[in-house]
Amino acid sequence: MKTLPAQDVIYAFSNKHEPILRAAAGDTVKIDTFDCFKNQIQSSDQEVATIDWDQVNPATGPIFIEGAEIGDVLKVVIKDLEIGDQGVMVTGPKLGVMGHRMTAMESKIIPIQNGKAVFSERLQLPLNPMIGVIGVAPEGEPVSCGTPGSHGGNMDTKLITKGATLYFPVAVDGALFALGDFHAAMGDGEISVSGIEVPGSATVQFDVIKGGRLKHPLLENEEGLAFLVSAMTLDEAVSTAVEEMIDLLLTQSDLSVSEMTMLMSAAGEAQISQVVDPLVTARFFVPRHVLDGLNFHLFS
Amino acid sequence: MKTLPAQDVIYAFSNKHEPILRAAAGDTVKIDTFDCFKNQIQSSDQEVATIDWDQVNPATGPIFIEGAEIGDVLKVVIKDLEIGDQGVMVTGPKLGVMGHRMTAMESKIIPIQNGKAVFSERLQLPLNPMIGVIGVAPEGEPVSCGTPGSHGGNMDTKLITKGATLYFPVAVDGALFALGDFHAAMGDGEISVSGIEVPGSATVQFDVIKGGRLKHPLLENEEGLAFLVSAMTLDEAVSTAVEEMIDLLLTQSDLSVSEMTMLMSAAGEAQISQVVDPLVTARFFVPRHVLDGLNFHLFS
Ligand SMILES: [Ca+2]
Ligand SMILES: [Ca+2]
Ligand SMILES: [Ca+2]
Ligand SMILES: [Ca+2]
Ligand SMILES: [Ca+2]
Repeated sequence: MKTLPAQDVIYAFSNKHEPILRAAAGDTVKIDTFDCFKNQIQSSDQEVATIDWDQVNPATGPIFIEGAEIGDVLKVVIKDLEIGDQGVMVTGPKLGVMGHRMTAMESKIIPIQNGKAVFSERLQLPLNPMIGVIGVAPEGEPVSCGTPGSHGGNMDTKLITKGATLYFPVAVDGALFALGDFHAAMGDGEISVSGIEVPGSATVQFDVIKGGRLKHPLLENEEGLAFLVSAMTLDEAVSTAVEEMIDLLLTQSDLSVSEMTMLMSAAGEAQISQVVDPLVTARFFVPRHVLDGLNFHLFS
Repeated sequence: MKTLPAQDVIYAFSNKHEPILRAAAGDTVKIDTFDCFKNQIQSSDQEVATIDWDQVNPATGPIFIEGAEIGDVLKVVIKDLEIGDQGVMVTGPKLGVMGHRMTAMESKIIPIQNGKAVFSERLQLPLNPMIGVIGVAPEGEPVSCGTPGSHGGNMDTKLITKGATLYFPVAVDGALFALGDFHAAMGDGEISVSGIEVPGSATVQFDVIKGGRLKHPLLENEEGLAFLVSAMTLDEAVSTAVEEMIDLLLTQSDLSVSEMTMLMSAAGEAQISQVVDPLVTARFFVPRHVLDGLNFHLFS
């Protein structure tokens, strides 16, 4: 298994970047990551004011995937996800849903102990370790690692965790994959603009699906399948995710558009990933039993 | 226990309506309902074109709750929820997220058999019986039963089911409560504009919380607490639901606004109820273990 330390990071997904590693389809790579502040906040005493905001949202990479060409799909299986033993949260004016109610930047150190995030003695939160930033280089201009899009990036989606498989549209030869910004826990919405930010290590396995032709990232887990769509508004993100999913399912179904829409209204789930990045991310999720009932097989 | 047949219905929540029943705090009432098409679609053969669209979204009521005054909160515990054995779905041009892809109105009868909604032989969907329209009279102009708002109404929220408790701001003396529009199943988003529409019967118990002062409906169940907020956009609905929840929790907490925002970002969930009514409804949900950790007790 190849390993990648956290030292080489990017702050934008760009088709101009030189890869720091090459991997082939089938390869597994263990990738270390800084937290989203590049580990700059280590104690509650430290003034958030002193951190270098040019070093926010580092992603480790990029990795050149051999054989991945424009129009293909990069498949990334998250085989394992480990997180550090100390997390940090940050809020401040103009950040997140409550930014208009804040008067100063604040940070809070949150120890990870006995499988819980210790917000306080009375508030010990269950962990849901996840990857905030994950994606490939976009076709055009570089996209900051703070922004999500059809290339992935800062999607801040709880489902991006151990056992999940992601599918990204390849927009540049070699895909140029990178990841970072792990959270020990986060609720849907990530309403403050920060999860419980932690460094960590992800073990991922790559594969290339020739001519897969996706327009947005797709996530598969044991429970089902979801399109992850980022847009200016939640309403637009949801609408696009729904239509992409219906069109995908119709490629293997005799149902009419009307019937598939009824089925999705009865059994599909429109869900929020994050509302703050500043593009927002929503997903449309279809449970496994519906996929099975449709006899749908992804990329078959 | 008082009972109310489905015969007396309203098509708007209005402070001008004459009540058809009076109930006191502590009373339990069993309320029968038509489906959202007033049971007009009984076979797949029937042309949707023939239905009377002036008879859509009937709600049984209103019920005058003795002692409920402006500024109070009406508490409604859903003790039981029964649904009929046949559901119907409808789609068509300009309806829902996929309306631009439809060329004609279509309906589909969905039998409810053996605890499943039989979409087809291969697609037997789990039931999640729920109430689509539930609320009280608004302060000002009447609001169509097709529209949600701070008075409740067409919120189409999956969590409004047996075992849930709803809290509504009382805007007129007697509250003037009504409900209808049951679904045998629906996914978050209700993306076609229709759940699996069924007639049914709800058994609800009323209570009045003097001076409760809510701005939006609140839902409590075993899992936690959620504000249900309707607005022009999901983004606005989510932001309002988050801020209302944080302000409610801060009434019983020493945490700062920043700390409570961090806690909600780590452990609260922004969720979608419906995106099609035409105002949309979102909710912000806080799990029970967080309420317990905060030592929060609703209306105590
Ligand atoms: Ca992030
Ligand atoms: Ca983050
Ligand atoms: Ca974020
Ligand atoms: Ca409805
Ligand atoms: Ca309905």
